[in-house]
Amino acid sequence: MSNDSLGRVETKSFMHKDSFSLKSGKTLQGFEMVYQTYGELNEAKDNAILICHALSGNHHVAGLSEDNKKGWWDDMVGPNKAFDTNKYFIVGCNNLGGCHGSTGPNSINPENNMAYGSSFPMVTVGDWVKSQDLLRTHLGLPYWYAVVGGSLGGMQALQWSIDFPDLVKKIVVIAAAAKLSAQNIAFNEIARQAILADPNYNSEDKLPKTGLGLARMLGHITYLSDDAMREKFGRDMKKGEVNFSYDVEFEVESYLRYQGESFSNRFDAHTYLLMTKVLDYFDPAESHEGDLAKTLKSVTAKTLLIAFSSDWRFSPERSRELANAFIEAEKDVSFLEIDSPHGHDAFLMPSETYDSAIETFLDKNE
Amino acid sequence: MSNDSLGRVETKSFMHKDSFSLKSGKTLQGFEMVYQTYGELNEAKDNAILICHALSGNHHVAGLSEDNKKGWWDDMVGPNKAFDTNKYFIVGCNNLGGCHGSTGPNSINPENNMAYGSSFPMVTVGDWVKSQDLLRTHLGLPYWYAVVGGSLGGMQALQWSIDFPDLVKKIVVIAAAAKLSAQNIAFNEIARQAILADPNYNSEDKLPKTGLGLARMLGHITYLSDDAMREKFGRDMKKGEVNFSYDVEFEVESYLRYQGESFSNRFDAHTYLLMTKVLDYFDPAESHEGDLAKTLKSVTAKTLLIAFSSDWRFSPERSRELANAFIEAEKDVSFLEIDSPHGHDAFLMPSETYDSAIETFLDKNE
Repeated sequence: MSNDSLGRVETKSFMHKDSFSLKSGKTLQGFEMVYQTYGELNEAKDNAILICHALSGNHHVAGLSEDNKKGWWDDMVGPNKAFDTNKYFIVGCNNLGGCHGSTGPNSINPENNMAYGSSFPMVTVGDWVKSQDLLRTHLGLPYWYAVVGGSLGGMQALQWSIDFPDLVKKIVVIAAAAKLSAQNIAFNEIARQAILADPNYNSEDKLPKTGLGLARMLGHITYLSDDAMREKFGRDMKKGEVNFSYDVEFEVESYLRYQGESFSNRFDAHTYLLMTKVLDYFDPAESHEGDLAKTLKSVTAKTLLIAFSSDWRFSPERSRELANAFIEAEKDVSFLEIDSPHGHDAFLMPSETYDSAIETFLDKNE
Repeated sequence: MSNDSLGRVETKSFMHKDSFSLKSGKTLQGFEMVYQTYGELNEAKDNAILICHALSGNHHVAGLSEDNKKGWWDDMVGPNKAFDTNKYFIVGCNNLGGCHGSTGPNSINPENNMAYGSSFPMVTVGDWVKSQDLLRTHLGLPYWYAVVGGSLGGMQALQWSIDFPDLVKKIVVIAAAAKLSAQNIAFNEIARQAILADPNYNSEDKLPKTGLGLARMLGHITYLSDDAMREKFGRDMKKGEVNFSYDVEFEVESYLRYQGESFSNRFDAHTYLLMTKVLDYFDPAESHEGDLAKTLKSVTAKTLLIAFSSDWRFSPERSRELANAFIEAEKDVSFLEIDSPHGHDAFLMPSETYDSAIETFLDKNE
């Protein structure tokens, strides 16, 4: 194990035995939440950072899993990395409704001893934050030193600062928005329709892999910038020349089909449906008739907002709206727009500016 | 019939009886091409303008069809409109592979007396232009005064100026590009996969309406700007409140589902597949190893390029690339970027600047 690696990490599980009510009005009769931790909790227990995952992420944030897979933010989390495990105790959990161990559509519904499937109740960012707070209690933490996330993960960080202002000192909201635009919802709706229209959706013995693959292909277009795709694929042909058929002709087609297929083999369609709905519903300002600044009035966390120049899924403009609301609410907010060609995916990739902005923000004490 | 209306228009048909070879190497044993004309051909026969249609368009450009439907560019074509039928003889045709009367996947293949369906050969913009030239001969025109089109239609206008420099005096290329980007191809590929994955694709008695509807929904996102969607739908709820289900919740979902469904009832999936491939293949500079300026060297037509500020399917940047190539080739080119919030769809909508730019360009004699 080298100095900059976490090595093998263990997945732990937290069982919440009481009933848990959801925003939708439905109730879960308890739940399981799987999580991983990296670094050491200090004596005061005040160095814990929660990292929230996005649409297709999970609790395996960093280090190596039992089957030797690196976590989705391994480049950012570890000894001497942006999230330095020599200083901080980092926690990653799989959200409710997920498909990587926490209670979700593949879990057994205690009411009828069958897998929930499509009957798993809708969840919201608020529900997740409430469940993550139970994990905080379970871990014996007085509060989170920071809650952090990119994309849908950033929305959880923001919701934390609104719902539990006394339980979080800092938030980092990356490549996110205070709510989805009509275009965002439209992309999600097409992804859902692709899954719901798959004849294997809700079948007893088959999985709607085609629909899920299509949904993922579509997602990928929105994660990359137009320029990044041009750079990566251009109009290159897979076999060097046009074959006048619907088989793969261009490299970009090959890439998308591969991404769609491999994702459909490792992810659950019900979870994908749920996650897109969680995104659509996210709108914390709703409780204050759309007035975001008013919604942020109670926030006490120091806030860092980060956006990437070529991100068109959640463009820098959306982070700027959020920054302006924080300023209007007279809060301690910093906003950094990082120049990057990588589109929305940039939030997953380390860069000098990105790393040092996070490091400085986390280390700062005043 | 008012002064600014064409009233009812008649659809005519041109039969090409000889064999017609396609870029793919395949051959059609003759074809039928339906078309409409508006205005009068003058004695010198030098006032004819060909208007080329885009992905889902057809020969019914203006006036009223037999079932009282307005043509897709009725706002732009007619007496005293941008394309003034008091001055010009305007021609619209349905391209080969279409589903509105010209030979296409729904036609009978003379070789086996069955509908072509998915066996209809791939066509290209070059094939279309060649077939449109046969229509020109059929109409007895010495040349086109102008060839005009938006989006895929603009690509045909461009190809005309390259393939038949002596047979076209002016071209207007609107909201188009000299070739598709990887992102454009990616959107097309997902649309195709949605259709090909529909279990009713190639079925004997059912139509792949779900897949075609999905493809169209996706298309619609790319035709509208993010701002236009925000303006039109925002986050408005169809029933006023969240219902925590996969039914329609947001107005934008309702709009897209309606658009997808109504399109799938009036358009042919095989044609849709073909049209997206025609787009992907378009790359006139291929014949000169990607050097667009060299490709344009033989062009003699005066050229007007028009782009719309909020169009992200074929952004103004793509038209600027084209303009620069024309300039490098020392050609007579004008480029106009029109400020519009309507995204790619702007090319279908009249505006003062748009109309007068076209009118002035067409009327100019030197």
